[in-house]
Parts: sequence; structure tokens; C-alpha cells
Amino acid sequence: MALDTAKSRRLEDYGFRLDHRTRWIDNDMYDHMNNSVYYFLFDSVVNAYLIKSCGLHPPTSDLIGLVVHSHCDYFAPVGFPAVIELGLRVVKLGKSSVTYEIGVFEKDQEEVKAVGEFVHVFVDRHTRRPRADGMGTQLKKGLQVLATPIKISKL
Amino acid sequence: MALDTAKSRRLEDYGFRLDHRTRWIDNDMYDHMNNSVYYFLFDSVVNAYLIKSCGLHPPTSDLIGLVVHSHCDYFAPVGFPAVIELGLRVVKLGKSSVTYEIGVFEKDQEEVKAVGEFVHVFVDRHTRRPRADGMGTQLKKGLQVLATPIKISKL
Amino acid sequence: MALDTAKSRRLEDYGFRLDHRTRWIDNDMYDHMNNSVYYFLFDSVVNAYLIKSCGLHPPTSDLIGLVVHSHCDYFAPVGFPAVIELGLRVVKLGKSSVTYEIGVFEKDQEEVKAVGEFVHVFVDRHTRRPRADGMGTQLKKGLQVLATPIKISKL
Amino acid sequence: MALDTAKSRRLEDYGFRLDHRTRWIDNDMYDHMNNSVYYFLFDSVVNAYLIKSCGLHPPTSDLIGLVVHSHCDYFAPVGFPAVIELGLRVVKLGKSSVTYEIGVFEKDQEEVKAVGEFVHVFVDRHTRRPRADGMGTQLKKGLQVLATPIKISKL
Repeated sequence: MALDTAKSRRLEDYGFRLDHRTRWIDNDMYDHMNNSVYYFLFDSVVNAYLIKSCGLHPPTSDLIGLVVHSHCDYFAPVGFPAVIELGLRVVKLGKSSVTYEIGVFEKDQEEVKAVGEFVHVFVDRHTRRPRADGMGTQLKKGLQVLATPIKISKL
Repeated sequence: MALDTAKSRRLEDYGFRLDHRTRWIDNDMYDHMNNSVYYFLFDSVVNAYLIKSCGLHPPTSDLIGLVVHSHCDYFAPVGFPAVIELGLRVVKLGKSSVTYEIGVFEKDQEEVKAVGEFVHVFVDRHTRRPRADGMGTQLKKGLQVLATPIKISKL
Repeated sequence: MALDTAKSRRLEDYGFRLDHRTRWIDNDMYDHMNNSVYYFLFDSVVNAYLIKSCGLHPPTSDLIGLVVHSHCDYFAPVGFPAVIELGLRVVKLGKSSVTYEIGVFEKDQEEVKAVGEFVHVFVDRHTRRPRADGMGTQLKKGLQVLATPIKISKL
Repeated sequence: MALDTAKSRRLEDYGFRLDHRTRWIDNDMYDHMNNSVYYFLFDSVVNAYLIKSCGLHPPTSDLIGLVVHSHCDYFAPVGFPAVIELGLRVVKLGKSSVTYEIGVFEKDQEEVKAVGEFVHVFVDRHTRRPRADGMGTQLKKGLQVLATPIKISKL
């Protein structure tokens, strides 16, 4: 994704949204949320959606999602004690894998602060290999809901 | 504080309350929020109050709060993806130090999950020693608001 | 434990020792390791010992350790990029529960930086209740090794 | 960097190396180090080098490093209680910015577990803008040491 595209994202471009309050420890010595903490939030919004809308129950589910790639572009700082709003969409949906895009916003501010992506490969909990039927019907259906083409948010 | 007293706490016993959404990484391998993470939340509710109601600006304030003691009793598990409600009160207020009590609740559940305390000593940012005038008027006033005796929450 | 006793602890008072390198994110805005992070280290030294010397295999073991209480007294700061040395001993050993004491030192410095304790209750993974035979023989034997009376470290 | 290139990295390809012991909380519910935690380690090895070899003193330095991009490819799991070895090299060195590459290894294992990159832009602490003289001589010299072309590690 081009940086210009990423920078133009707005919260309404994302089909699933969740707010997270920042924590004191999120800020590092430079008084802003540390770059690594964004990935904790990515993990949280994705897993919240998988549990809520895709029937995944992490402690016992047959399938587990392994992260094989992640990245993030940071445009502007956020930090404690702000409330963050996360937007989630699905960029690519394969047989066993999915690429998510996550937008990071500060509550009541329009401009996007950071945009990241990560790739889940769904594997069998025990063999840690993809299964013959891939991610299965329920999971795929849940993820397809977030895979609609993004609207042009600004004209 | 006796364990029985702690276990009887209710959210309305606390003068300042703040919700925090749990994160995926908060859960450890046993599928509940790790015991250490509670202390991140304690730090967050306390510092949010200090910033919001006591005029503290952590990156540049002359005074900083050093934690000299903390403890927590855990009564029942909470975990991702629950929303947690934290209650804060002041147990003891000295010249340069304050003892906070924090109650941990799960949203829409009455029973308290954990109760902890920690002690801040306010020191000069540069000397890291208490100042002659202690924590100062503005901070003390802000903390006194939370120091009212706890109501008996159940009869 | 009296504060004076805690402050006189030395690394050699502890039967099991492990070093941990601090991380950038351990430091909060005040340029020292955040008070909550000490508990992450407590958890790490205890679980390392349980895995190494007590035969516990956290992902599949029948028994899991639930933390019901923890506390810490902080005497002097440590912080990134220091290497920390942790000492572990067993203070109290019951049928299903154990109280650990952990001393926090900076590498090549004699004075103790912080001393904490926490209590594990070992329960069945599925029922989350103590078992009729308590923590079992292998675990108890492993913990007894660390339960020897502390030597007087300074005369 | 092509995935094949990344997968062929060995610890000796990196000019600066540092070990970090994993922590209990690093593992998520799937019994391996959570994908986000790798970025904490990247931050730690980079900042350790900046402090040790480039004269940066984070609490008071005029320059601070802002992360504008980060990514990671994950090849194989690692997890508590393993010791991790991190290798650091400089991929690109500009006037005010630097791209680092970090390799993640498990102690005494040859195969690389993950390879990531991140970009620091060095800015003035107060204006949060690059300075006319860029990152300055001392910092640049320190980083150049890690910018030597990578040796072919396997023939």
C-alpha cells in the first residue's frame, strides 16, 4: 500500500472498530506510545473480532492463527492517557491465510496516526500446519464481512 | 486491610473510576490476565487521575511519583477480551506520600476480582528526594477528594 | 518480613539465581524500570525454576500455579540497559501452595534493589481447584530445595 | 529484502549481538513468544547500541530517534524460557535517518527465527523535527560501523 493511501485512511474505512484506552507503560521515555505497543493493539483488535464474529475460542480451538509477517507505518504520535480507536479490514483472504489492515486513530481526531498490516496463517493447534480444508467455513465467512472494498473516504 | 474487607468492595466504593479494555497479550498461557498486568492497570488509573485532576504533567513536572511499595490480592480471574473497570481511592495521605487502593472489576459484574494498593512518594525530578514543601497544595487537594471514608457497601 | 531484613538481602541468600537483561520498554517516562515490570521478572524466575527443576510443563501440565497474592518493596532504581540478577527462595511451603521471595539485584552491585513475594496455589488445570494430593511429590521436592533457612549474610 | 535472503541469515552476519532472556509473559496463549514482543527486542538491541557505541543518552540527549516504519518476517517460533540472541546491522544510513536490520536467533541454534527492520528518524527532542546538521557526527560514525556489507554466510 502506498504511503499516501495509508495516510488518507479514515476510521469509517474500516468495517470493525474498537477503542482501547492507553496505559501508563505504553509511553516510553520519549512521552509517546512506543512503536512496539501498536502491534499489541493490532493483535487485540484482530483476536477480538475472531472471537466475537468468527467463532474462534483461543484456549481450545482446533485452529490457531500464527503471525508470519507484520508491518506498520507511523505518521503521528499518540500516547497515554489518550483513548485509541482501531479500525480493522481484510485486505486479502486465502485458503488458510488472511492479511489484515489496521488503522490507528485517536478518539475524536480525524487524521490517522498509523497504519499496519499483519498476516495470519491458520494452522492446526497440534501439528502447527495448515489443514486440508484451510481455515474452514465459519472463520472464512466471518473474515469475508471485513473484505469489502474500501470506500474512497475523501474526494 | 483484611481479606474479607477487600472481597466486599464494590465499584461504587471508589471515587474515581476508569474502564480499560484488556489486550490479547494480557492473557498468559493459562488463559487469564497475568498477575503482573494488574499493576500496569493500577499505574494507569493513578496516573490518569494525577494528570486529569491534580495538574501533574509527567514529561515536565517538577514532582514525580516514585513507587516504594505495591501489593495485590487476587480473588477471581479476568481476561481478554473483557473490559475492566478500575476504582481508585486514597487510603492514606501524608506530606510527601500517598497510599492508593485500587479495585479491579469486570464490566457488568458486581463482585470484585482483585484489590491492590501502592504507595507513591513524590520527589523532585532532579534530586529524587522529597521537597521541603512535600507534594504541594494542588496535588494534595486533588488527592484529598479521593480520601473520603469508604461507605459500607453492603448491609 | 521487616523492611530492614529485606534491605539486607544479598544475592547469595538465594538458592536459585537467573539474570535478565532489561528492555527499552521496561523504563517508563521517569527513566527507570517501571514498578510493574518487577512482577514480570518474578513470574519469569519462578516459572523458569518450576520448568527446570520441578518438572512443570506449562502448556500441558495437569497442575497450574495461580497467583493469589503478590507484593514488592522497592529500595533503589534499576533500568535499561542494565542486566538484572534475580534470586529466588521459598519462604513457606504448604500442601497446595507456596510463598516465594525474590530479590532483585543489578549485576556487579551488592545492594539489593527490591524484594518481593508472591503466593502460588497449584490447582488442577480444568477444575481450577486444589487437588486431593496437593501439589504432588515432584513439585514439592523441587520447591523444598529452595526452602532452606536463609544464611545471615552480614555480621 | 527477499524472504530467501532473510531466511539465510546467520548470527555472524551481524556486527553487534546481544542476548536477551525471554520472560514468562512473552509467551501468549499459543505457547510461543507473541509476535509483538519481537519489536520490544528490536528496540532494545538498537537502543543498547546507540547508548553504548554512539554516545546517545536517552533521558537528556538533544536528539531522539522516532520510529517511522517497522516490519518483521517470522520463520519459526521461539519462546519462554529460551535465551534469544539478537544481531544488529545497518542497512541504509541517511542524513537524519537509519534503517536497521535485526536477526532473531535462539541460543545455540543456527537457523534464524525472524528478521525485521525498522527506520529511525533522528529529530530534535523539543521541535520533533530533523536538524540542519542531521544526526550529527558521533551518531553517524557509530552507525557506520554496522553498515559494512553483509558477508555471504554460507557457500
